[in-house]
Amino acid sequence: MKHEIDLKKYAIRTDLVVDLLASKEMEGITVQEEQIKGVHVTDVRVKEENNGLGKKKGRYVTIDFQDVTDKKNAMEVEDAFVKYLKEFLEEEKISFDQKALVIGLGNDDSTPDSLGPKAVKQVLVTKYLFDMEEVNPSSDYRNVASFIPGVMAMTGYESSDIISSLISIGKPDFILVIDALASSAISRVNKTIQISNTGILPGSGIGNKRKELSKETLGIPVISIGVPTVIDAIVLVSDTIQYLLKHFSYHKDFFGKNKLAPVTSIDTSNYEKELSEEEKETLLGEVGQLSEEELQELIFEVLTPIGYHMVVTPKEVDFVVSKLGTIIANGINRTLHKNFDN
Amino acid sequence: MKHEIDLKKYAIRTDLVVDLLASKEMEGITVQEEQIKGVHVTDVRVKEENNGLGKKKGRYVTIDFQDVTDKKNAMEVEDAFVKYLKEFLEEEKISFDQKALVIGLGNDDSTPDSLGPKAVKQVLVTKYLFDMEEVNPSSDYRNVASFIPGVMAMTGYESSDIISSLISIGKPDFILVIDALASSAISRVNKTIQISNTGILPGSGIGNKRKELSKETLGIPVISIGVPTVIDAIVLVSDTIQYLLKHFSYHKDFFGKNKLAPVTSIDTSNYEKELSEEEKETLLGEVGQLSEEELQELIFEVLTPIGYHMVVTPKEVDFVVSKLGTIIANGINRTLHKNFDN
Amino acid sequence: MKHEIDLKKYAIRTDLVVDLLASKEMEGITVQEEQIKGVHVTDVRVKEENNGLGKKKGRYVTIDFQDVTDKKNAMEVEDAFVKYLKEFLEEEKISFDQKALVIGLGNDDSTPDSLGPKAVKQVLVTKYLFDMEEVNPSSDYRNVASFIPGVMAMTGYESSDIISSLISIGKPDFILVIDALASSAISRVNKTIQISNTGILPGSGIGNKRKELSKETLGIPVISIGVPTVIDAIVLVSDTIQYLLKHFSYHKDFFGKNKLAPVTSIDTSNYEKELSEEEKETLLGEVGQLSEEELQELIFEVLTPIGYHMVVTPKEVDFVVSKLGTIIANGINRTLHKNFDN
Amino acid sequence: MKHEIDLKKYAIRTDLVVDLLASKEMEGITVQEEQIKGVHVTDVRVKEENNGLGKKKGRYVTIDFQDVTDKKNAMEVEDAFVKYLKEFLEEEKISFDQKALVIGLGNDDSTPDSLGPKAVKQVLVTKYLFDMEEVNPSSDYRNVASFIPGVMAMTGYESSDIISSLISIGKPDFILVIDALASSAISRVNKTIQISNTGILPGSGIGNKRKELSKETLGIPVISIGVPTVIDAIVLVSDTIQYLLKHFSYHKDFFGKNKLAPVTSIDTSNYEKELSEEEKETLLGEVGQLSEEELQELIFEVLTPIGYHMVVTPKEVDFVVSKLGTIIANGINRTLHKNFDN
Repeated sequence: MKHEIDLKKYAIRTDLVVDLLASKEMEGITVQEEQIKGVHVTDVRVKEENNGLGKKKGRYVTIDFQDVTDKKNAMEVEDAFVKYLKEFLEEEKISFDQKALVIGLGNDDSTPDSLGPKAVKQVLVTKYLFDMEEVNPSSDYRNVASFIPGVMAMTGYESSDIISSLISIGKPDFILVIDALASSAISRVNKTIQISNTGILPGSGIGNKRKELSKETLGIPVISIGVPTVIDAIVLVSDTIQYLLKHFSYHKDFFGKNKLAPVTSIDTSNYEKELSEEEKETLLGEVGQLSEEELQELIFEVLTPIGYHMVVTPKEVDFVVSKLGTIIANGINRTLHKNFDN
Repeated sequence: MKHEIDLKKYAIRTDLVVDLLASKEMEGITVQEEQIKGVHVTDVRVKEENNGLGKKKGRYVTIDFQDVTDKKNAMEVEDAFVKYLKEFLEEEKISFDQKALVIGLGNDDSTPDSLGPKAVKQVLVTKYLFDMEEVNPSSDYRNVASFIPGVMAMTGYESSDIISSLISIGKPDFILVIDALASSAISRVNKTIQISNTGILPGSGIGNKRKELSKETLGIPVISIGVPTVIDAIVLVSDTIQYLLKHFSYHKDFFGKNKLAPVTSIDTSNYEKELSEEEKETLLGEVGQLSEEELQELIFEVLTPIGYHMVVTPKEVDFVVSKLGTIIANGINRTLHKNFDN
Repeated sequence: MKHEIDLKKYAIRTDLVVDLLASKEMEGITVQEEQIKGVHVTDVRVKEENNGLGKKKGRYVTIDFQDVTDKKNAMEVEDAFVKYLKEFLEEEKISFDQKALVIGLGNDDSTPDSLGPKAVKQVLVTKYLFDMEEVNPSSDYRNVASFIPGVMAMTGYESSDIISSLISIGKPDFILVIDALASSAISRVNKTIQISNTGILPGSGIGNKRKELSKETLGIPVISIGVPTVIDAIVLVSDTIQYLLKHFSYHKDFFGKNKLAPVTSIDTSNYEKELSEEEKETLLGEVGQLSEEELQELIFEVLTPIGYHMVVTPKEVDFVVSKLGTIIANGINRTLHKNFDN
Repeated sequence: MKHEIDLKKYAIRTDLVVDLLASKEMEGITVQEEQIKGVHVTDVRVKEENNGLGKKKGRYVTIDFQDVTDKKNAMEVEDAFVKYLKEFLEEEKISFDQKALVIGLGNDDSTPDSLGPKAVKQVLVTKYLFDMEEVNPSSDYRNVASFIPGVMAMTGYESSDIISSLISIGKPDFILVIDALASSAISRVNKTIQISNTGILPGSGIGNKRKELSKETLGIPVISIGVPTVIDAIVLVSDTIQYLLKHFSYHKDFFGKNKLAPVTSIDTSNYEKELSEEEKETLLGEVGQLSEEELQELIFEVLTPIGYHMVVTPKEVDFVVSKLGTIIANGINRTLHKNFDN
């Protein structure tokens, strides 16, 4: 298989930096990890524009968690989110008298895409009270505005154009943007919040007209908050085949054979010893010898012409997105205002 | 791989008879097909209790279609659905003066599971008017009641127990049950309506306590109407690997090589000539030699311990389920009442 | 005006006992009042079947409050609600091992009528876990089931018939019923929770077929929880005319004239000194001399033939009903289970 | 009662021109009426800026109808709406190649205020297809964009500022604005669509900061489409007292007495012969002698200090607003595009 690989043209979205970390060398990158109760935080700083991740210079914090429909878990996630969101504001040297604009990207009528709108509706907005001079400058409230620009297929307008206008009108000092993301790994769906200061590409744009929302394009600091709520079917299949190989490797080492022995209930997904190329061929033939990118390209070729290049979401998406929207809104309120009792 | 296969224990739901047809010999079964404009209908009659499908004796009509968010398609689907639903009523010898109870299974708060409740809310109910003697017996309206029993995890009650009670109270002569199904093929998700007179297993039951809703258990004819809105991740992966083999087979025959040549935009999913066992081994190794059931079992073993045995639904589920609920409700209204103008 | 008054025939619903208290002598009745922070509780015990209120023997607790969209207020209301709901369970000698069935009357698709369904969806249900023997008998959880029977116009079924069936199937030891009520006073709308052990008439029944839900009809204790969310236009007008007279009376006494002097911003609604009959005639003519019942009858006569006998709800109903549903659900969870942390 | 009357300061909104027509002389105004099946249309042209209505120069078309939950009625209303909306486009000399921007004012989370957002979500948007040059210029589709600017209390932004920005970005040639209105007459609530070319004041603005949306402020034609969905409690009471007097007048004339005789089921609301001042005093005392404005002022004084200056909406608002949103969206689609088949 010698043809060139250009995964980008297959439009498999990879919005999460941690997805890339796993499979790449790290040049110009520092990674710190922190465990806060049941929540795992990966704090990646990309220090140079040209780096192994192909990602923009900046900070990417990933908060990983389990089921947020459990109240205790949800509170732990909210606390970790507040801790790191406050750090982003500090790093951007944003003071309490500076004005925030909170943007919820996505489409409120499509559950997996409704995270942004759901969160923004719960953010405490005070801008009009400041405009009417009804807020004491020494109060516990920051000047906060919010907006849900909608999706281009429904409005005809680019989100970035609308947000530029809102900046002209309201003169905010910084922007928080919330969006649902696509994941390139099964394990992240609805189980990760990523915070970054490098900007965001609105997910619902059409074709190559999507314009970035970032400090470079908008002129003020942009802190983005994203949760992967969907996954490409291609990634689902490709991930599973990778897990298959790890499963074989584990079984070979522990049971003295590379047979497909049925031993359920052992998590082999983190087994690090890889099979040899020969073993891979025995087990998965030519397919076993493909790189992850080649495999995804192949699956793309097979699924696309028959119309099954689906983007999917777990069945429980309604409950999880609703809960995550509340966690993010509460976290933003606690970060932007003082003494916020939720 | 010699260990016994018992797919049922892996809980991969296969609610659609047409999914089974593709891979089984047909003993005691007749199949008729009809194309009505853009809609394809497969009419399966299972004539003996012991048959190649492992399905109950009775009639299974499958209506396949494309995107129902297109108005013209939607009307064609509704017309085909009405035609066949009327046939089911005639076969059960149900006359116009007989009373209907329309049941919407599922959970209104979970989009992929909300088809039944969404449809039932649009069914025209007349029972209380008949009870109050406000309907002229020679009118165009049948005596129709409806109910949404909810899901056991939310109510604590079995749907079948509640429906038995409704039958005792209201004395309907027959039941229509609407439910969201799981598909065992990518191609069916949100693109099929199945009508059957053999009963239904409520999809949201827990463990093996689910009780069948059928003429045998309820004492009156039960016509079930189902749409697959979710798919097991295992099926998604397994289907894709099958498509992979067809893709190779097609390319070998048409391009003189079994290389993984990149030729997008050709639909090879219906290419019927199979690869030889040797070719399968070359391409996919030992995995290529597994039967579909063995492959699903293997994927189950790999994904389950790591918690990724997901049931997924396409990202567009909100729009499609809403539209399908309306089509089914309109179709039921046109079938149960006379001169129903929607 | 000598014709007989029979207000009931005009279908002006008066679901709240405190509305009646204001205008009636109290025979066979004791009233206790308690102020818990911002919440006022009126605890009425009707001791004899024949009494001045025309209400059934039993206890009626009314919790009055202000805006529950304020978090502090909401918590005070929830605490008072839990305190009194626990008293009702104790009085009925309901122990922790006894099984609860929580019923949400009303229609989820009509905001002012959706209080019951909204609350019930947030009640923690455990019945199926007990049925599967997955709950330790010494746990902190009570055996709780729930149900939303829907409205007769949509299902064709009487709520009382469905609830009787649920009792036969699940054998609960007592029932909590939640419903939206009609108020007969402007001041109560969305600002009162009434708890009673005397049963409830489902509000959405049609004509005189509504059947009571009570210990007498169902055989087990029934504790009803109601919030007035709608008001009859007749009551709104009649209340306002009563307030008009109080307004005049206050102004006469304090400003030495019975002119219609414009003095806004004084709350005169609790001014107790009444005008003389002569003064009432001067101000409001013959209308001023009507009793409250006669006035409502007159307004009924005027509005009904022109189709304006409306039942109305405040514009903010969406936010308030949603908040009240959560308060009631949290309160029920804290009362039925132990150590419930919400 | 000699104090000055300034009703505007009491903030009783009167968004409908026909409400004013009833009680005013008509200088510089022409009125045409048309009955189209069950729909009554009042077509008011205000020809001079200074006129008896105190309304801006321009055209005001009011479409009155009964229950739109009936399908036949709904279609008649839609047809009349399309007929007149097309006339407005013609009068503004808007050709098919001119670009439309459809704005939905209001708040999607508050049912009575959600008409604009509900309608706009069903409008067919094509702007992005034109931007990508995917629409044949000779097609049946006009270039249409849409937007839901939200309410200032939630976003902090003035609707008029956002709309000005959208005009700068997308360069539409004209604007359609949809909003829920307040009615100053019981009889209009949910039973009227008003179309006008004179602009609109966003209903959810705060205090006197509301900015008009009109050709004067935005620079391009603005056609507004409004439905009254709420009514002030003050209007409800005041209307009822007016009906009371008509009721007395009718009864006196037909039954030879001005007693409060109970005769239900006769619609007396259009009885034109007025009572004498003396008769009014006998029946309603001093209150009977107040003008409508004085009466509303008095009711305002009574209700406001006790917090009952409510804005109310009929209990059925969910169903009616949903249906009206669809009628307006369908009508707009049929007007803006060609051969639109809904």
